[in-house]
Amino acid sequence: MNIGFLGLGGMGAAMAGNLLKAGYQVSVWNRSADSLKPLLDQGAIAAQDPIDALRNDVVISMLADDAATRSVLLDSGALASAKPGLIHIGMATLSVGLISELVALHRERGVTYIAAPVFGRTDVARAGNLNILAAGPAEAIAQVQPLLDAMGQKTWLLGEDPLSAAVVKIAGNFMIASAIETMGESAALVKSHGVEPSQFIEIMTSTLFNAPVYRNYGPQIAEQRFSPAAFRLVLGLKDVGLALEAGQSRHVPLPFASVLRDSLLEAVARGDGELDWTALARIPLRRSGQD
Amino acid sequence: MNIGFLGLGGMGAAMAGNLLKAGYQVSVWNRSADSLKPLLDQGAIAAQDPIDALRNDVVISMLADDAATRSVLLDSGALASAKPGLIHIGMATLSVGLISELVALHRERGVTYIAAPVFGRTDVARAGNLNILAAGPAEAIAQVQPLLDAMGQKTWLLGEDPLSAAVVKIAGNFMIASAIETMGESAALVKSHGVEPSQFIEIMTSTLFNAPVYRNYGPQIAEQRFSPAAFRLVLGLKDVGLALEAGQSRHVPLPFASVLRDSLLEAVARGDGELDWTALARIPLRRSGQD
Amino acid sequence: MNIGFLGLGGMGAAMAGNLLKAGYQVSVWNRSADSLKPLLDQGAIAAQDPIDALRNDVVISMLADDAATRSVLLDSGALASAKPGLIHIGMATLSVGLISELVALHRERGVTYIAAPVFGRTDVARAGNLNILAAGPAEAIAQVQPLLDAMGQKTWLLGEDPLSAAVVKIAGNFMIASAIETMGESAALVKSHGVEPSQFIEIMTSTLFNAPVYRNYGPQIAEQRFSPAAFRLVLGLKDVGLALEAGQSRHVPLPFASVLRDSLLEAVARGDGELDWTALARIPLRRSGQD
Amino acid sequence: MNIGFLGLGGMGAAMAGNLLKAGYQVSVWNRSADSLKPLLDQGAIAAQDPIDALRNDVVISMLADDAATRSVLLDSGALASAKPGLIHIGMATLSVGLISELVALHRERGVTYIAAPVFGRTDVARAGNLNILAAGPAEAIAQVQPLLDAMGQKTWLLGEDPLSAAVVKIAGNFMIASAIETMGESAALVKSHGVEPSQFIEIMTSTLFNAPVYRNYGPQIAEQRFSPAAFRLVLGLKDVGLALEAGQSRHVPLPFASVLRDSLLEAVARGDGELDWTALARIPLRRSGQD
Repeated sequence: MNIGFLGLGGMGAAMAGNLLKAGYQVSVWNRSADSLKPLLDQGAIAAQDPIDALRNDVVISMLADDAATRSVLLDSGALASAKPGLIHIGMATLSVGLISELVALHRERGVTYIAAPVFGRTDVARAGNLNILAAGPAEAIAQVQPLLDAMGQKTWLLGEDPLSAAVVKIAGNFMIASAIETMGESAALVKSHGVEPSQFIEIMTSTLFNAPVYRNYGPQIAEQRFSPAAFRLVLGLKDVGLALEAGQSRHVPLPFASVLRDSLLEAVARGDGELDWTALARIPLRRSGQD
Repeated sequence: MNIGFLGLGGMGAAMAGNLLKAGYQVSVWNRSADSLKPLLDQGAIAAQDPIDALRNDVVISMLADDAATRSVLLDSGALASAKPGLIHIGMATLSVGLISELVALHRERGVTYIAAPVFGRTDVARAGNLNILAAGPAEAIAQVQPLLDAMGQKTWLLGEDPLSAAVVKIAGNFMIASAIETMGESAALVKSHGVEPSQFIEIMTSTLFNAPVYRNYGPQIAEQRFSPAAFRLVLGLKDVGLALEAGQSRHVPLPFASVLRDSLLEAVARGDGELDWTALARIPLRRSGQD
Repeated sequence: MNIGFLGLGGMGAAMAGNLLKAGYQVSVWNRSADSLKPLLDQGAIAAQDPIDALRNDVVISMLADDAATRSVLLDSGALASAKPGLIHIGMATLSVGLISELVALHRERGVTYIAAPVFGRTDVARAGNLNILAAGPAEAIAQVQPLLDAMGQKTWLLGEDPLSAAVVKIAGNFMIASAIETMGESAALVKSHGVEPSQFIEIMTSTLFNAPVYRNYGPQIAEQRFSPAAFRLVLGLKDVGLALEAGQSRHVPLPFASVLRDSLLEAVARGDGELDWTALARIPLRRSGQD
Repeated sequence: MNIGFLGLGGMGAAMAGNLLKAGYQVSVWNRSADSLKPLLDQGAIAAQDPIDALRNDVVISMLADDAATRSVLLDSGALASAKPGLIHIGMATLSVGLISELVALHRERGVTYIAAPVFGRTDVARAGNLNILAAGPAEAIAQVQPLLDAMGQKTWLLGEDPLSAAVVKIAGNFMIASAIETMGESAALVKSHGVEPSQFIEIMTSTLFNAPVYRNYGPQIAEQRFSPAAFRLVLGLKDVGLALEAGQSRHVPLPFASVLRDSLLEAVARGDGELDWTALARIPLRRSGQD
């Protein structure tokens, strides 16, 4: 199985690297060429353009967002020139609207589309420990399972409809954002009554909230340590927007997501958009005059 | 150390039982007498009234709420007749307003007040595995530590000011309520796109959200299983009210808590007040027409 | 009809003044004596204490809030010593909880209770142009109608239950607060796109929103002119709290009121509690980095 | 001045009719032909297609929304084939994003773009009493002023940037939606305490809220009378979305708009999308179990 790989940001580069390590032939393409070098050193082939990258058995895309995916896959003419039988594994976090559009366009073209977004940040990707949410034709997923295994610790199968994987990823990110806001409000509350946020977070993450998301983000929030950004706040705003859009498309109000959106906008307006998205937890301190 | 114990609901009875098992002499009192029997069978002494229960070295109160505490401890004349030197361990979840009032009244009377609210429900209490949040004079806490050890797996020390323990408990309950709402909204979202909430919850609680609070409540929410009530929704509404009040007293806005209050009120209005408080997760289904 | 009058703040003094002008004998009492002088000059009699003020045919109370009403009327022993047959017109804005309590206590004592809160600020009170919301026994209201006519331009009759007048007043204040927030958010929105808030407000108040509340508050908001305070922001926070409490007592979620509460708390935390409550409109500017 | 007119829904037909009455030559075009007849009877010329309609001195567009405008003006090739010097008056309510795009595209083409959205519904349009918000090159506006005068009672000049008119219209609609929600919550609150919403609304609209928007919508809300739809709820949801988008583009959080969006979504989910948008006021009754 020869692989094309589109999008070599932190995540994509780590994932393509693991495919190379597993012995696959991988043709890589990225908008800016500077991230190619380390992969070429590992044996990757430089694809000339997106169209070229699609001339493989399987193409994997890990592009930044809807706009990048639209530009690289559709506007470039890549999908339009793909040969029937190709399997495309879309691993970025995309809107439900774009996923629906992609499903239709791939079907027209005879290309199989698998949505396979992931949980895990760059370090997890490098370690090959991603959790992969896969949805698409079962046979096709079975066929590419070895590739998914090279990139992730576990593949969660979500059925035939790519939308299912997309919405699980979107809802998962919404849960993380809600956890950040919850800790932010709680920390501001206990602090206002003289309790050190660190001690509060330690208690909670040692007991009921002893989960990775709280253990990772809790101390950052307690210590107001928001850089370097493992995940930029503006991306968090984008992701909460994806949740709101996914809700709106099925008439599902999400009041927590609405609060998150408003607070993230405030954070951006106050200049914190490039900080880690835990900087959302600055807002409750600011609003209560404790900043 | 002889102990008086006020309030023998599910929690109080379990805790008094563990003190008896540890060999302490415990005089118990409860508003309704029917919960006394099992404890008397274990060797407890029946106190005649709250005043009588306070005629011990230490008195522990585990009354339902502010109103019950006020009635049993203050209106009954119990605190007013307590002898100086008594140590009172208040283990219920009380408002910051009442705690402040109690601190002052105990000081006037020469009675030591320790706030020691707990995390854990009835089964945890029975197993002696509570997490205890203790704040008050260090020496007094050290003195009663054996009692706390008989009831809990760990005591978290929060300094000299009883308010600190109260606010940590209140903020912790707010975090749990937020987790329920978050799962409820997420479940409604994925369901609207054809994904089984159970599968979504399984993925999240196996990965980033692998913590007791999510593993306990998640499946109940996914399966919409809200009775029997381990913690009644009306009590959850009361607890979110405590968070809002604690915030208001220090001018800390808590927008998630405001959303929670509105949704819990809706749940009560729709007749779900006596269900388990995970029934909060019914609201997003109802609002999106998926009920 | 001889009248006792409790509470001579800006509103009470203006109202008592109009009763004097209309030729009534008025015994006045106030917590601090300094506001008495001008009324005594107009012919008022100084009541010795609240008990003394209740030794009249009718007593009118216009005290600051629940706490003041409770202290002056109940804790002082005034109501407890009132003679049956007295009519008490409560004109302050009180909580539905206190109103219910007062109704029961007055009934026990054989005193008639009429709730008659008002719309209008000090200048309107001075001009005798208040809108009065009256609820209580019809016969009693008919009897005191001349007094109400001396204070207001119109009495709106709301039936026999004093709660009805209270809740209309509370809901009305909530509507005003919502109008302020609405203008504040709108002004921040148009400003961010380069439109002068003043021009926007002028357009809206000349057309669809051509009502006193918008014409009065709109320009203050557009020009960010928040002092002198015609109605202090902390009182607005209190009034929104009354709406939330009135809703909670009947399980009516009020999401706009929740937003208002959070924003008013933020305003207080940022030091604006003593400004006019239109300063609520500062928050949207602050949150969007336009302050 | 010969005029092309695109979009003959209720609003467009009424406006084009007034231009004909004022003696102008108007070539009309509509997606579906059935609305043309009455205008042709009044002397209008049938344009063959949008391209044809743009072969005039001035073209006015009053299309349903962003999508319709994009399709009729851009995708059809109409703008691309317009001759320089044409003045286009865009009178629909469009997003700030599309307005920005249109401004750039018109400039490229040498066509003058004036944004001139309106306040007023069909009956107001028919009477020629619209309030018109106009922004664009001052000279061009002066030139078309007679046309605007034929359609509206007043033109509010908002400067050179078409965005300014767009955002004032969007903010105005947000204010109306907030007024509806405010009345809906208030009505649910007073009703829960036994007060007739009609009486409450009568008091408020006779006093502080004596403005067209409250007098028009208030009784509909009090009487829960939501059809026929003067403005469909789904359009209200679209308009609140325009406000949220306009805010997001400048990082202005609008918490009231977020609440409105969630409640409007709930209304659509419950099947009320085709009712008048005052049906938003059903939600507070439903949430409080009073439906």
